[in-house]
Amino acid sequence: MRTVNVALAERAYPIRIGQSLLAKPELILPYLKTPRVAIVTNEVVAPLFLIRLVEGLTDAGVAVESIILPDGEVHKDWPTLNLIFDGLLASRCERSTTLIALGGGVIGDMTGFAAATYQRGVPFIQIPTTLLSQVDSSVGGKTAINHPLGKNMIGAFYQPRLVLADIDTLQTLPDAELKAGLAEVIKYGFIRDLPFLEWLEANLDAILAKDPTALTFAVERSCINKAEVVANDETEQGERALLNLGHTFGHAIEAGLGFGAWLHGDAVAAGTVMAAELSARLGMLQSSDVDRVRRIFERAGLPVVGPRLGAERYIELMRHDKKVEAGRLRLILLKEIGQGIISDATPLADIEAAINACCA
Amino acid sequence: MRTVNVALAERAYPIRIGQSLLAKPELILPYLKTPRVAIVTNEVVAPLFLIRLVEGLTDAGVAVESIILPDGEVHKDWPTLNLIFDGLLASRCERSTTLIALGGGVIGDMTGFAAATYQRGVPFIQIPTTLLSQVDSSVGGKTAINHPLGKNMIGAFYQPRLVLADIDTLQTLPDAELKAGLAEVIKYGFIRDLPFLEWLEANLDAILAKDPTALTFAVERSCINKAEVVANDETEQGERALLNLGHTFGHAIEAGLGFGAWLHGDAVAAGTVMAAELSARLGMLQSSDVDRVRRIFERAGLPVVGPRLGAERYIELMRHDKKVEAGRLRLILLKEIGQGIISDATPLADIEAAINACCA
Repeated sequence: MRTVNVALAERAYPIRIGQSLLAKPELILPYLKTPRVAIVTNEVVAPLFLIRLVEGLTDAGVAVESIILPDGEVHKDWPTLNLIFDGLLASRCERSTTLIALGGGVIGDMTGFAAATYQRGVPFIQIPTTLLSQVDSSVGGKTAINHPLGKNMIGAFYQPRLVLADIDTLQTLPDAELKAGLAEVIKYGFIRDLPFLEWLEANLDAILAKDPTALTFAVERSCINKAEVVANDETEQGERALLNLGHTFGHAIEAGLGFGAWLHGDAVAAGTVMAAELSARLGMLQSSDVDRVRRIFERAGLPVVGPRLGAERYIELMRHDKKVEAGRLRLILLKEIGQGIISDATPLADIEAAINACCA
Repeated sequence: MRTVNVALAERAYPIRIGQSLLAKPELILPYLKTPRVAIVTNEVVAPLFLIRLVEGLTDAGVAVESIILPDGEVHKDWPTLNLIFDGLLASRCERSTTLIALGGGVIGDMTGFAAATYQRGVPFIQIPTTLLSQVDSSVGGKTAINHPLGKNMIGAFYQPRLVLADIDTLQTLPDAELKAGLAEVIKYGFIRDLPFLEWLEANLDAILAKDPTALTFAVERSCINKAEVVANDETEQGERALLNLGHTFGHAIEAGLGFGAWLHGDAVAAGTVMAAELSARLGMLQSSDVDRVRRIFERAGLPVVGPRLGAERYIELMRHDKKVEAGRLRLILLKEIGQGIISDATPLADIEAAINACCA
């Protein structure tokens, strides 16, 4: 088992990464305030992992409630969040009850937001079961639900007490979701970790074959990168924005097609290609660099072109993103491969040209 | 103008108390991140005070959006909260836009929760226009909405950057609401400020006659008491619980009759008498002390007996309160007049007897 520490002063917490962690309640017990938990999961994840987790905790003397939600990004909304509150209140969960998110990013984001707001805040543990949630959404304390007018528009910064990334859960993950998670893994290489990018280029086949050793390394290295960024900038005032490489373009794709039509990671991959293309147009990357960006995503089976919504519609949707300040688009670009930068003053014509160059 | 500082390290903020403050945008400008605000108010408050505030800010070069909600505790729910999000998103308010709550406790709690969660947190200013909100709910950062199964069950601790208590707004306040606010003012005397209680006993008539000098003093002294408690214990791990004197009983009254049937302060007054009665049964107060509690509430026109729901129903409802830990009722009692204490182990029979003695 590997441990990555997220250094956030009084809110510091460990990420445990390894195999067979779900069956080890002793990893969880030290982080409970009282021996009572409510596990939030969904109808797809529950049959795979819920019983294993519940049995271990129950045998260890923990009282367990389970709340099973419908699956999917389309349910990342208030009515579904309210099912969590209904369950907590019906079983009279208290301020000291720990909420455990068992599932992917949607479950993690919603359970985290429920933990942040149930009785103004209860203890929270993340057990991410997808690659995307293990390397990205479970680390850093961003929680949210969607609003019809925007993704993740309602939420909170709320840190878990513990993240448990059991690599074994990835063995049952559909290939499409594994690949979508890979988009975020590759992102860390592009924005701040060239040696990791080179390792990924050399070991991509092992990851795609779900080799546990390769997966453990990729998750650990991703979490180290994310934890460093988050520790430097918890509430996204500066450096943390680099993690949004490809995300502003990606959010436009997701919002333009309707949330759920594309996997988040697929949108990020196509969006990252757009950001790279734009970086080349602004003279920061060579066209061979943009090819390198395209190549690794293609090898991972990820899309490198976006849907043809029209450049104006893209920009309209991008302006509606949370990352907009004073009406100005803030984009993450690549100064070079392995070094992201924040740009507040990119000419609109260049953005449009980059989008047009990267749409099918 | 008087200023009370809430000493919360990097989240410290001032409370300004005085007359004609609504017409002084220069008090607000230093606390804006950008010259853009969204004012949230309700249909009763808007005709009285909104134009004055908007004109001042607009003249000072601030872009102002207004969101007007229906009035009343029954609307302290998700659908109404969502009207705030709809308004913010429709007008594309950004992370740097400041939310201003203009109204009573319901508006303050809902706007604060919207500020805590819109795009994971935007700047927030409170302009309380009722006595209750000026002396209690606008100070301390508690924000929330109700759930059908419990009051304030969904919320966050989120501090404003500034509280502006314009005493002039109390001149149009209905008497019933002035009295309900007085219940909380009197509470500070009982739990920690005997000299203030004695001042209130001597000056109650001036307050009821809405004398500005008396009101200003009462608001300032209340805010000083609340600010001290909150600074010592921001997230209610200990001392802050003292502020709940009368509230666990009071919440049972509000929940038992349906939220909105009784004003919150009325329920707190009757609940405080129950707490005093219970304190006497446990040997801490004399019966003359309980009479003193009853007398000041009666002089203020506040109820001193609760509705006859039955002691078992009271206790059932009290157990559903957020303040419950491990199934155990935590009550605030009076060790003596002017000194509250937290009790976790009050015998159920005594609680029932106290309730029965204080119901009509």
